Amino acid sequence: MNNFDFHNPTHILFGKGRIADLDARVPADAKVLILYGGGSAERTGVLAQVRAALTGRKLIEFGGIEPNPRFATALKAVELIRDNGITFLLAVGGGSVIDATKFIAAAVRHDGDPWEILTSQGAVVADAMPFGTVLTLPATGSEMNPGSVITNAEKGAKLAFLSPHCYPAFSILDPEVTYSLPPRQISNGVADAFVHVIEQYLTYPVAAPVQDGFAETLLRTLIDLGPKALATPQDYDTRAALMWTATQALNGLIGAGVPQDWSSHMIGHEITALNDTDHARTLAVVLPALMNDQREAKRAKLLQYARNVWDIREGSEEERIDAAIAATRGFFESLGIKTRLGDYAVGTPEIDIIVSALSDHGLTALGEHRSIAPSDARRILEAAL
Amino acid sequence: MNNFDFHNPTHILFGKGRIADLDARVPADAKVLILYGGGSAERTGVLAQVRAALTGRKLIEFGGIEPNPRFATALKAVELIRDNGITFLLAVGGGSVIDATKFIAAAVRHDGDPWEILTSQGAVVADAMPFGTVLTLPATGSEMNPGSVITNAEKGAKLAFLSPHCYPAFSILDPEVTYSLPPRQISNGVADAFVHVIEQYLTYPVAAPVQDGFAETLLRTLIDLGPKALATPQDYDTRAALMWTATQALNGLIGAGVPQDWSSHMIGHEITALNDTDHARTLAVVLPALMNDQREAKRAKLLQYARNVWDIREGSEEERIDAAIAATRGFFESLGIKTRLGDYAVGTPEIDIIVSALSDHGLTALGEHRSIAPSDARRILEAAL
Repeated sequence: MNNFDFHNPTHILFGKGRIADLDARVPADAKVLILYGGGSAERTGVLAQVRAALTGRKLIEFGGIEPNPRFATALKAVELIRDNGITFLLAVGGGSVIDATKFIAAAVRHDGDPWEILTSQGAVVADAMPFGTVLTLPATGSEMNPGSVITNAEKGAKLAFLSPHCYPAFSILDPEVTYSLPPRQISNGVADAFVHVIEQYLTYPVAAPVQDGFAETLLRTLIDLGPKALATPQDYDTRAALMWTATQALNGLIGAGVPQDWSSHMIGHEITALNDTDHARTLAVVLPALMNDQREAKRAKLLQYARNVWDIREGSEEERIDAAIAATRGFFESLGIKTRLGDYAVGTPEIDIIVSALSDHGLTALGEHRSIAPSDARRILEAAL
Repeated sequence: MNNFDFHNPTHILFGKGRIADLDARVPADAKVLILYGGGSAERTGVLAQVRAALTGRKLIEFGGIEPNPRFATALKAVELIRDNGITFLLAVGGGSVIDATKFIAAAVRHDGDPWEILTSQGAVVADAMPFGTVLTLPATGSEMNPGSVITNAEKGAKLAFLSPHCYPAFSILDPEVTYSLPPRQISNGVADAFVHVIEQYLTYPVAAPVQDGFAETLLRTLIDLGPKALATPQDYDTRAALMWTATQALNGLIGAGVPQDWSSHMIGHEITALNDTDHARTLAVVLPALMNDQREAKRAKLLQYARNVWDIREGSEEERIDAAIAATRGFFESLGIKTRLGDYAVGTPEIDIIVSALSDHGLTALGEHRSIAPSDARRILEAAL
């Protein structure tokens, strides 16, 4: 096991009816900005629950945060906060709303140009406003981690930052608020969480049986519950386990002390940047091709994955790896997610653009061995056509 | 899954050489009290590493904390802290030293009689001094939880308390410092961690696949690594995984949202109170008898335990449960831990005393169903003779 630090101070309030606990969590004298995305938080009644729980506090609302949250939108919130003496932020939504809130919380307390927060990957963040979250979509894990991804449309850039100041003070996870999610968001969330686990697991062994076993638990749970969550949207047990799985998939625990990959994410981001394909769908396209391409570097872990996640015990090593990759692809397809670039209008000319973009963004040494160059990404993408 | 809160703010610093990080963790102007137990922390060089890392700070030391830490001893430390204007506590040791430090940290800031901290189970704790730990023994999980058990010899009482103010600010887990531990402490630590997991897992199903899968990972890891840790004491990978397993076994994660038992602990405490048998050994005696006795109430989870932890897939339900109980007993015995009361000089007359003590201490409704009365404990103990 590699040396590591683990420190996750977010307070999780999990279960039915927990939005009412906002009253105890948000300071009584706080002036609160409630941040949300499109109309669903209003339509589903979540915002009404939030307002009811915060009765007596001064509330201002800021809606319209985009699915890939925009830098310019965040800056409008920063101005609103400064103009109104807001003292506490509450994100009500999924990963995009929470990511935007983290950036806003840091930007309000940052003296220089807020763009530096992103270009420094969070290094310049010395402080952030306190904020909590009410999660409505199990997927990104942003509710219990210090990371955020922001898109700057003018600059054509999608940049991430991390700061220990940007853990939510608390996150409320009520599985019932996910009942009304569209199937596409559920399937995307399951695939996103699945690949989050894979990025921290499918590398090479470092004698970390706790992290490996936890990761395998999360993968098996997603495989079991993903289709059930689509088939029976109002099944509390399924939605509850799914919600907790997605949180555990990216809260630092399974990634502590082990190598990490993240090349599927880096390549996938460029596909989204090109044609706005859903993030999770880009992962479902890249991952199977990448697993096959990197089978030598990942051999030991691919065999462990085949056995412990898919219960594949028969056949030669190559056959077991092939079967595990086919099972992975089949899992995404069973969620209604296509796994070929052609399904998303990406052909050979678009691959040229994606590969160039990786170079342009300095992403020239990806993966747990920093060995995947843009030329390797081209080979992987061509295999995904 | 049941509703739950999860909030664990302890910062873990894990790996080789991490004691040097104390310099960055302990405030530069702190006046530090270093707390430790017997002579081993000095003998093994851990205290020397700690002193070197804290060079420049005012250090006072307080040794002699007992294996079952005493109330009277803790009060001496409280006096020393007040007399010397100590501002930070550092526990260097295993669960006993850390438990004592938690109590001391709370007692220093408590206005009334410190005994109230224990009789209120921590409810009166409104604040505590900041403290960190350097863990030397993987076993109790105290390094990443807010609980503590203190013995009052005069009153013949061993009482636990919990307080959210009593999480360590940080804990340093360097697996290399465990190389020199006596085999008895390693085997006790493995058994203790194993039963910590069992108390939170072997109850009844509540559709919590993440918690179940994490618990099963920890159990399988202990089964695999316990004997290896005894056979090859200086194997870093083994000691590292064991250390992280014991921490995860009792940091709130696997117990979040699920029923908990703790009857083996409650009954075992009375055996220790009677004749000072090692805590872990009392658990290894009580647990197999309790599993057999409670097979109806625990049937579904016993079958899941048999399959997922011991890979027992053949035979009738009764046969699989029998095999899982036999495997559990065999595991403890393989660590050199005897599993019959007779091995610890406990016979029928002593069972009378233990059963009376349970009644006297109000422990009349134990287990996840609060259904184990002292008369049931008698039956379990008689089966363990």
